[in-house]
Amino acid sequence: MKNLVSMKDLSVDQIMAILKQAQAFREGAHSTVKNSYTMANLFFEPSTRTKMSFEMAERNLQVGVIPFEAGFSSTLKGETLYDTVKVLEAIGLDALVIRHEENSFFEQLVGKVKPAIINGGDGTGNHPTQSLLDIYTIWQEFGTLQDIVVTIVGDIAHSRVARSNADALTRLGATVHLVCPPEWQGEFDTFNEFDKVIESSDVVMMLRVQHERHDSNMTFSKEDYHQAFGLTVERERKMKDKAIIMHPAPFNRDVEIASELVECDRSRIFKQMENGVYIRMAIIEIILKGRE
Amino acid sequence: MKNLVSMKDLSVDQIMAILKQAQAFREGAHSTVKNSYTMANLFFEPSTRTKMSFEMAERNLQVGVIPFEAGFSSTLKGETLYDTVKVLEAIGLDALVIRHEENSFFEQLVGKVKPAIINGGDGTGNHPTQSLLDIYTIWQEFGTLQDIVVTIVGDIAHSRVARSNADALTRLGATVHLVCPPEWQGEFDTFNEFDKVIESSDVVMMLRVQHERHDSNMTFSKEDYHQAFGLTVERERKMKDKAIIMHPAPFNRDVEIASELVECDRSRIFKQMENGVYIRMAIIEIILKGRE
Amino acid sequence: MKNLVSMKDLSVDQIMAILKQAQAFREGAHSTVKNSYTMANLFFEPSTRTKMSFEMAERNLQVGVIPFEAGFSSTLKGETLYDTVKVLEAIGLDALVIRHEENSFFEQLVGKVKPAIINGGDGTGNHPTQSLLDIYTIWQEFGTLQDIVVTIVGDIAHSRVARSNADALTRLGATVHLVCPPEWQGEFDTFNEFDKVIESSDVVMMLRVQHERHDSNMTFSKEDYHQAFGLTVERERKMKDKAIIMHPAPFNRDVEIASELVECDRSRIFKQMENGVYIRMAIIEIILKGRE
Repeated sequence: MKNLVSMKDLSVDQIMAILKQAQAFREGAHSTVKNSYTMANLFFEPSTRTKMSFEMAERNLQVGVIPFEAGFSSTLKGETLYDTVKVLEAIGLDALVIRHEENSFFEQLVGKVKPAIINGGDGTGNHPTQSLLDIYTIWQEFGTLQDIVVTIVGDIAHSRVARSNADALTRLGATVHLVCPPEWQGEFDTFNEFDKVIESSDVVMMLRVQHERHDSNMTFSKEDYHQAFGLTVERERKMKDKAIIMHPAPFNRDVEIASELVECDRSRIFKQMENGVYIRMAIIEIILKGRE
Repeated sequence: MKNLVSMKDLSVDQIMAILKQAQAFREGAHSTVKNSYTMANLFFEPSTRTKMSFEMAERNLQVGVIPFEAGFSSTLKGETLYDTVKVLEAIGLDALVIRHEENSFFEQLVGKVKPAIINGGDGTGNHPTQSLLDIYTIWQEFGTLQDIVVTIVGDIAHSRVARSNADALTRLGATVHLVCPPEWQGEFDTFNEFDKVIESSDVVMMLRVQHERHDSNMTFSKEDYHQAFGLTVERERKMKDKAIIMHPAPFNRDVEIASELVECDRSRIFKQMENGVYIRMAIIEIILKGRE
Repeated sequence: MKNLVSMKDLSVDQIMAILKQAQAFREGAHSTVKNSYTMANLFFEPSTRTKMSFEMAERNLQVGVIPFEAGFSSTLKGETLYDTVKVLEAIGLDALVIRHEENSFFEQLVGKVKPAIINGGDGTGNHPTQSLLDIYTIWQEFGTLQDIVVTIVGDIAHSRVARSNADALTRLGATVHLVCPPEWQGEFDTFNEFDKVIESSDVVMMLRVQHERHDSNMTFSKEDYHQAFGLTVERERKMKDKAIIMHPAPFNRDVEIASELVECDRSRIFKQMENGVYIRMAIIEIILKGRE
């Protein structure tokens, strides 16, 4: 694995290797990378959690991190992403985490620049480290992905998480249900009634209602959304005994999820964030070792 | 000491232990913390000096620091401070320095989250590391706080420093005078004439005139303020032989303090900032050792 | 060398010592600085490339870096640059890289503060680390500066690079031609026709068209500029066999330089950025060793 840009590029074997490396790190394994490497995290879109998770992973691996300030960068002077990355290559960076609003921004980079490219989220298409930490959390819980029923609820059409998780989980043997209001359905086959699938789900994965995207054209109030598509306390009671709740965060309490469920026994929301550090360590480890 | 949120929570013994640890660090002592720890500095309000002082203290203690950009954070997406801190707990941070405009923001955190919370300044109420570095500077100068006369001059009602210093200094045996124009007096007993107390003070602690707060409703010009409540060269001449000048900075030259006094023999202004690094090292050291 | 603020202060011997130290680092030499030092990079004006180049140089030398956020600093509260630097001195910083829009900002600092001052670009006057990396790149190419013909093309009047490079290169024995439209000539003797000098140049150094400065009052279109003063493919063909192309970047493709020339065989544009890290390592090494 030279770069990580999309779940589509990963074989089932590669995914399993990443999960196992993450699990090894969780159990206390140390990096076996030989050389000293330097990375930068290019977040052209804000994301506290993803950026800090990468920073922690890099620190845990003793990789050097050179700060990059997007609001401060030459892209303001009209520089293309390719030219910015060529500069960072010249300065000596070995790998770059990039979050960029452009869809598939990585196509202009992969194979053309020396630093490894790790996609930290692009347009609305890909967010492979989030998918991998979600998959890891499910695998950790059930010991397998085979025949696990995963229900993803929310803004399916605009969610990075939904589309890349659905593809990968299906390839790994899971059954994926998508639930959303008809207006957020996009090109996908979805259920429009949450209650039809809640009782049969092993995993209920709630997506964030993106107020900043929807406020102007949402045809329902937050309260109505919560009743129709939120994980209410009533719905949680219908879940299977061992079923778990997931959310990529940041979450809106009492919109997509009832506030009291955020830290309930079924919730793996903060576990997902713990796992995010191990997954990112695993990805960086595998990519850097591939360069030695 | 598990957290440091307010001077009120510190006993006299705890304050003295912090001062002595700071002094030990100043004299070259090394940290005796055993494990490797990681912190983040969450400055939701700007403060170059406090933030950089913490960063230096953390570096001196070889604590890892994960960068946090407030203007960039999920709080922009409506996340509560509690939820942000729970995320940082999940990512693996051991202690957080937080500056936040909300008064007593720490009440929603202490006892509910795993990372230690160090208050880097809240609303207008608490700024314990500033108080401790001020107290340390006085103790260092006079070898005691007992019977030292400390005069604090400026915007008493809105100053974090004034109220928490006044409380703590009084408990430590010092006599505190507050001096300000009547409109900045708030609920406090104050003198409205600086000249009544200047000759009897061991410490004259000037506060910053917060132009950004007052410009619209100040009833006096900068020059008038300087004459009435500023530390002018004339007033400095009336000070006791061994009396010292303090200021938490940033200072306005020729408003609260005459420009030529900033670096005069009596001034401990830059000494305070040096001491700030040692005080913050002491606080972090004591809190991290309490976790081992 | 205690500070580096202007090319004018450097003797030819000092310049050559810096180039040789940079070359030693390029060939794998390690720092021989004995103590542990801490620096900060104060960029009051944005510059991804210069800032990241310094950060990489500091990391390579194992110098600690305390983050400084200009948009976040006390200068917003009206603090002078001198007072900000005195604070950083008190906090314990050994050296500061400063980029500031004020011309010769360093005059208020040098000799008055303890930290070493390294000019990262001031007003439109000085940018010595850029000049040194340019000179290093030419020296590396030709083994000498003596009798090398360097043609600098672009906004001569407003370019930091042009004026400090021209002075230093001339002192080092090179011949410098300046080429620009008459409106950007300023006080300098310039050629207004690029084609008069292209064939005799060993180095063609293109400068960035600063759209953000010129958009409102440029009397020619980007296309016209490219034809008249840009390095077109046609002009490149007229260059001497061993002649090279340089650009301080960020570059505007198809304005000052044809897009296909950016990475052509003659281009040393990304080599310049590589060299920038070694030059900055050399400068910091020499300054820190001078403090031991």
